[in-house]
Amino acid sequence: MTDQIMNLIEEGKFSQARNEIIEMNVVDIAHFLEQLEEEKLLVMFRLLPKEIAADVFSYISSELQQYIIEVIADKEIKSIIDKLFLDDTVDILEEMPANVVKKILKNTSQDRRELINQFLNYPENSAGSIMTIEYVDLKKEMNVKEAIDHIKKIGVDKETINTCYVMNKNRRLEGIISLRKLILSDEETLIEDIMNTNIISIQTYADQEDIAALFKKYDLLTMTVVDNENRLVGIITIDDVVDIIEQENTEDFQKMAAMQPSDEEYLKTSVFNLAKHRVLWLLVLMISATFTGNIIRRYEDALLSVVVLASFIPMLMDTGGNSGSQSATLVIRGIALEEIKLKDILKVLWKELRVSIMVGSTLAIVNFIRIYYFEKVDLNVTIAVCVSLLITVVVAKIVGGGLPIIAKKLKLDPAVMAAPLITTIVDAVALISYFSIASRLLGL
Amino acid sequence: MTDQIMNLIEEGKFSQARNEIIEMNVVDIAHFLEQLEEEKLLVMFRLLPKEIAADVFSYISSELQQYIIEVIADKEIKSIIDKLFLDDTVDILEEMPANVVKKILKNTSQDRRELINQFLNYPENSAGSIMTIEYVDLKKEMNVKEAIDHIKKIGVDKETINTCYVMNKNRRLEGIISLRKLILSDEETLIEDIMNTNIISIQTYADQEDIAALFKKYDLLTMTVVDNENRLVGIITIDDVVDIIEQENTEDFQKMAAMQPSDEEYLKTSVFNLAKHRVLWLLVLMISATFTGNIIRRYEDALLSVVVLASFIPMLMDTGGNSGSQSATLVIRGIALEEIKLKDILKVLWKELRVSIMVGSTLAIVNFIRIYYFEKVDLNVTIAVCVSLLITVVVAKIVGGGLPIIAKKLKLDPAVMAAPLITTIVDAVALISYFSIASRLLGL
Repeated sequence: MTDQIMNLIEEGKFSQARNEIIEMNVVDIAHFLEQLEEEKLLVMFRLLPKEIAADVFSYISSELQQYIIEVIADKEIKSIIDKLFLDDTVDILEEMPANVVKKILKNTSQDRRELINQFLNYPENSAGSIMTIEYVDLKKEMNVKEAIDHIKKIGVDKETINTCYVMNKNRRLEGIISLRKLILSDEETLIEDIMNTNIISIQTYADQEDIAALFKKYDLLTMTVVDNENRLVGIITIDDVVDIIEQENTEDFQKMAAMQPSDEEYLKTSVFNLAKHRVLWLLVLMISATFTGNIIRRYEDALLSVVVLASFIPMLMDTGGNSGSQSATLVIRGIALEEIKLKDILKVLWKELRVSIMVGSTLAIVNFIRIYYFEKVDLNVTIAVCVSLLITVVVAKIVGGGLPIIAKKLKLDPAVMAAPLITTIVDAVALISYFSIASRLLGL
Repeated sequence: MTDQIMNLIEEGKFSQARNEIIEMNVVDIAHFLEQLEEEKLLVMFRLLPKEIAADVFSYISSELQQYIIEVIADKEIKSIIDKLFLDDTVDILEEMPANVVKKILKNTSQDRRELINQFLNYPENSAGSIMTIEYVDLKKEMNVKEAIDHIKKIGVDKETINTCYVMNKNRRLEGIISLRKLILSDEETLIEDIMNTNIISIQTYADQEDIAALFKKYDLLTMTVVDNENRLVGIITIDDVVDIIEQENTEDFQKMAAMQPSDEEYLKTSVFNLAKHRVLWLLVLMISATFTGNIIRRYEDALLSVVVLASFIPMLMDTGGNSGSQSATLVIRGIALEEIKLKDILKVLWKELRVSIMVGSTLAIVNFIRIYYFEKVDLNVTIAVCVSLLITVVVAKIVGGGLPIIAKKLKLDPAVMAAPLITTIVDAVALISYFSIASRLLGL
């Protein structure tokens, strides 16, 4: 299907191609246009009917958005920007270089420009930067029929009409009411009598993480954003929250893999920026591994007498690291989903203790059979390896389970306490117990 | 506030407590009830008005749902279950033991029981098991006024009326139309002329991961589920998708930390089950570390001559592991969010090569200064450590960036290719390059 349209475009049959394209979903149109050469993209984009051009534009990659804005006429820009919802416009502007922002703002009406500037001033990832102000406002004195008539009159320009907001003269929020409730209620009923006054709202400067948590907790479809005096300033809709949830998860993945988080797409991030986000933690962890090196050096004599001891270091360290990161991951995830609270720390530690003894013993037994019977390693060395394996797994799981909760208690990010940091602690414990047990058993 | 209600309940002032409680959000009521002793929970639950009791019930933990079903009378069960949406009922039943399921089904009408059984037969996490069948159906011959009247008549029992579905006589889906569009259109307009025929739908047996991907791609609020013959069988709403997204993310976190995934909450999972999900991968990775041990044993002579070599093993291994998991995490995440496609493999490898040289050189230089100037280690040993550090970082990042894409190509799960598996490969490379460079430089 898209190949066919591509052929039409190659043959210069643009308006025929257009007729095919407009049957597609706007998201698919955007993806299709992205595959064209720049001039053809421009021709096709200009041929799109006005009603869908703005929608398609909002789904095109920011590089191509920039290209389009740079080459089209002022009048065309105006017709796109006027049709975009305010929050989409702000999202687009945030990605653009200064000259393009200027070109866009020049072609925006005075009121709208002021609003946009106000939005651009909210801190990144705050409720204010995510919300939209295109909502339907009602008054509690209206009856259902009046309310629906009001919606019919102003609803076209609103991002959502599924939830409407009841405000008094001072714009203080008094209640919310769903379109569903309006449709299903009698025409004469007063809004006041059917509106919901139990409103979940959030302040303008709240962080997106808290917003997502509330949406999940209360199964919301929209949430109200209010200022200090409980005046309604905007609403947040669930489609934005889906993006927030993925972004927060991406950040957690990155922190847990010892990176400074970034919300840029991998393929669109420069090599230098990728390196910058990775090198700091690698340096910190590399230097903290000095400590482990010192432990080994303290036991140089033991190593010289029984050099085979060195060959079990990687296995002990890897198993410890993996055990610790298993526990840390489950606990960090539990905290993020609010399934594990600070007060659960003892429950977690007790659980990890029992799990680690079960898992550690299994590993130690398998390992015993493997190295004593198959690899014919000396019994004392085997015992030292297996006992320190058990100790390492237990310590790794206790540390892995406990550290994220302690971090949370200290108001640090639990995700930063993940695998790499725990590995460094666990490595030290593994090596000290291994060498001290081996020294004692082997009389070194 | 909740303390105050708690006091009222302690003093036996139940109906006063009830009057306070019903002012709360249903989610908060559920959380509040969960904190009560079982008998008091029951008293308070029974005092809730019928309209909200079912809603509150659906938010209570499954242990307490089970308790309530076990002790209340058949008639009460019926009044709760009748008010629950079908998909919530199915979710609850999936968590209950057989005797409770029986008690619930006994108190359900014949039609509904058949529907429930049909739902319970869909594979877990398939579109069929997530969808609801409580949607509004319209006919294309209706005009807007008739459609709205139809919604008014049947809408109360429907999970969503924000999107309505237009079907022909054979229940084949012909279009969808939003309540918004209906409200904003002229009363005489025919549904046929304003319905959207560009429908994103999915088959009954599709996996929830694909469902979430479509919701995100097209910014959907609802999606239609159809059978092989394009007959509408149900709809999926975005509130369920938010849960799916978190569940899929949890699975990825678990796989990347070398665990078999489980969607049970940590605190509610038994110690045995936790151990079971962790031990398999630990065993596999422990045994594959034999390989690394063998490498060290091959270089026993080198170690005996220059025993300080052993002390850099942990640093090399940890840095390699961390570098690899950074790259793997970014790429796995990019694949999950569909930002990285299979065809991007060369772009990824080229990017990782450049990043790894940048990062690896920085680490090598810092390390050189640290161990040569501060720890006064022999120059040749220092060079061996730093060169193999650079090689390790480069290999780790290439392997970490490439393996997940290759896994995806082989239709395996990229997340399983994460940190632990990569660590084992990188460990081997690190040790071989380290010892062979050291042997050559030191003439061992």
